[in-house]
Amino acid sequence: MTVADHRATWLGLDPDHPFGVHTLPYGSYTAPDSGARRAGVAIGDLVLDLTAASAALLPADAPLFAAGHLDPFLAAGRPVWDRVRAAVTEWLTDPRHRAAIEPLLVPAASVTSHLPFTVADYVDFYASEHHATALGRMFRPDGDPLTPNWKHLPIGYHGRAGTVVPSGTAVPRPAGQRRDPGGEIRFGPATRLDFEAEVGFVVGVPSRPGRPVPLADAGRHLFGVCLVNDWSARDIQAWEYVPLGPFLGKSFATSVSHWIVPLAALEHARTAPPPRDPRPLPYLDDSAPAAGPWGFDLTLDVRLNGHRLARPPFAGMYWTAAQQLAHLTVNGASLRTGDLLASGTVSGPGADERGSLIELTANGSRPLTLPDGSTRTFLKDGDEVVIGASAPGPAGTRVGLGEVRGRVVAAPPAAS
Amino acid sequence: MTVADHRATWLGLDPDHPFGVHTLPYGSYTAPDSGARRAGVAIGDLVLDLTAASAALLPADAPLFAAGHLDPFLAAGRPVWDRVRAAVTEWLTDPRHRAAIEPLLVPAASVTSHLPFTVADYVDFYASEHHATALGRMFRPDGDPLTPNWKHLPIGYHGRAGTVVPSGTAVPRPAGQRRDPGGEIRFGPATRLDFEAEVGFVVGVPSRPGRPVPLADAGRHLFGVCLVNDWSARDIQAWEYVPLGPFLGKSFATSVSHWIVPLAALEHARTAPPPRDPRPLPYLDDSAPAAGPWGFDLTLDVRLNGHRLARPPFAGMYWTAAQQLAHLTVNGASLRTGDLLASGTVSGPGADERGSLIELTANGSRPLTLPDGSTRTFLKDGDEVVIGASAPGPAGTRVGLGEVRGRVVAAPPAAS
Repeated sequence: MTVADHRATWLGLDPDHPFGVHTLPYGSYTAPDSGARRAGVAIGDLVLDLTAASAALLPADAPLFAAGHLDPFLAAGRPVWDRVRAAVTEWLTDPRHRAAIEPLLVPAASVTSHLPFTVADYVDFYASEHHATALGRMFRPDGDPLTPNWKHLPIGYHGRAGTVVPSGTAVPRPAGQRRDPGGEIRFGPATRLDFEAEVGFVVGVPSRPGRPVPLADAGRHLFGVCLVNDWSARDIQAWEYVPLGPFLGKSFATSVSHWIVPLAALEHARTAPPPRDPRPLPYLDDSAPAAGPWGFDLTLDVRLNGHRLARPPFAGMYWTAAQQLAHLTVNGASLRTGDLLASGTVSGPGADERGSLIELTANGSRPLTLPDGSTRTFLKDGDEVVIGASAPGPAGTRVGLGEVRGRVVAAPPAAS
Repeated sequence: MTVADHRATWLGLDPDHPFGVHTLPYGSYTAPDSGARRAGVAIGDLVLDLTAASAALLPADAPLFAAGHLDPFLAAGRPVWDRVRAAVTEWLTDPRHRAAIEPLLVPAASVTSHLPFTVADYVDFYASEHHATALGRMFRPDGDPLTPNWKHLPIGYHGRAGTVVPSGTAVPRPAGQRRDPGGEIRFGPATRLDFEAEVGFVVGVPSRPGRPVPLADAGRHLFGVCLVNDWSARDIQAWEYVPLGPFLGKSFATSVSHWIVPLAALEHARTAPPPRDPRPLPYLDDSAPAAGPWGFDLTLDVRLNGHRLARPPFAGMYWTAAQQLAHLTVNGASLRTGDLLASGTVSGPGADERGSLIELTANGSRPLTLPDGSTRTFLKDGDEVVIGASAPGPAGTRVGLGEVRGRVVAAPPAAS
């Protein structure tokens, strides 16, 4: 096996499993035999009951998991994050813990997963140059594809935190206003429903009002990573978004993966972000080594009804999460535990690296043909989108980010 | 006195007091002699300890106020809102309750007020035609002042819920990027810091995902009204806001008043909204009587360092809160208790009816002269903005909305 012996788990797990002992992501679930929410750690195809395990083996930190969600743990900060990860690693690798831990493992397929944390503010960025350029060409054909500010600051906007839903939640097709090509204003179910494959960074430690978080402090605040599908109704968005930005075209649902992968699991995936030109202002300039590399070599995998559409590379994103955090707070805005920073659609330069249908179909002008012979420009009712990702781990392993899954269902009968 | 005897309070309150027995707004405070947060009702210049009063006199509803904030009460729905308001009215008007209630009154000036509810999602609208036209002229001088969508849908965007602060909180001047007239990108404290006088509607009862809230149901969900100062850094906003809307230009702070005036107190202020042309789509068309009038005859009062700058009229707002709620949910987005819908800057047609400095000074081209002889285009450090409002009440009374107050303080030393 490729994994060093001292990190091998007594579970006999395939060392290539994306939820190996190097991953250890955190979530919140209800087991079939109990109504109580529990905090959990995914290991292989199992879930460890972290609420129970911490009560038995790590009593000082057990109160952090008693409520069955991650909020107190996220707020506790890196020394606690490191201590708990070390303890869980020991439980799963040292055979002396097997007797205590094995009864606390349940099959992942048997549990009901919940949102692992309370989403405080949800900010959606726009950090892929390829995506921003492609959408700029479609939405503003008469101007430069990138707005003049794009390379000076990580553009973002606040999304609706209250409609962030866990992977697996059905997504009713939104209704809304659109303007037809002839200029007619119409109301009805969205005709251009899309996904956006994104990576989300979850804030653990809050910050104080009026105190910007410099690049070098990002690791003190950011806990981990999840996958995000920022569902988008392109027809609603195109009509509404000038001048104050996306609103109903995005706010009906945003899906997130069940498992938050801690940044500690992604150390081997860190990579230098792409060169920036022009050089950003000092508060965004991460060329100094002290800031560390905040690019991550994640490869996304986007599937529609089981058919792979794209493998967008995250490593090429122009703006990093550390820069997004520095920008978000530079005006004095404070962070709360549970703030979710989504990357914006992850798209690379290649034709098979685009994280949205609007890019993959050239704004609907080049339909995709699926293996069943059907074609798609945008999503049909019944379509299921699954976004997965993985990253390099230690010793040739892969660290999985799980998946975010969602199926489009027909809009409820329209009110009008 | 002008108030009918059966509604006169044994407190001997001036019937013209804006927090008379017809107002009875709700808040959250800490009394000087106790560290515990309490729910309160403002009456005159006093605050009734609703946590204690309900425990003694309304035990069935007392759990709603035990935590000392309004969240459970807001979620409880209109029958409970009506019952509690009736009980508080009786306590304050029937002399038989005086012995029990009088010891539970404390001077408002002695308490520390908190955010009365947990802000879930904060949505800022843009509902004044006068304001939107004025800003459109300044921000997009080459186009139509109103974007083509403006009269078809209530434009709004999500703001930062985590930086909504109670009245009285100091507002540090935000720092950020701006583009100077010569095209140079600079970083530093905002040079064009402004206020926006707005009215906020607070959601009580949540709604279900995928279930739009029709106009006729707005009263089931909306609990009451507060005042909002949506502080705005115009230089940051102008540079960042294309294409995804305002972000750091607004996210540093949004101030709200301490007291939430229930809609039940504003029945005499209801008034027909202005005529709309074109007629909106059916889900926004409030011309049918069943939807009721959702305009409110509130008069705002905007003061800078004690000097009145404007008296913006809320009655002329083009889009009502009921329309904003119907629009916000028509795509299936759900509501949570504590969602805050701000109106956007309240501006009327008159020169003294404008709710922001950018309008009052014609984008900084016509400085205001204050009584001390100093001039203002935008806010200076040390400036205090106070926004108040009142509305017609029964029998010639006025219903007060309290005030939202905030002082600009110098930015902390810049990180870069």
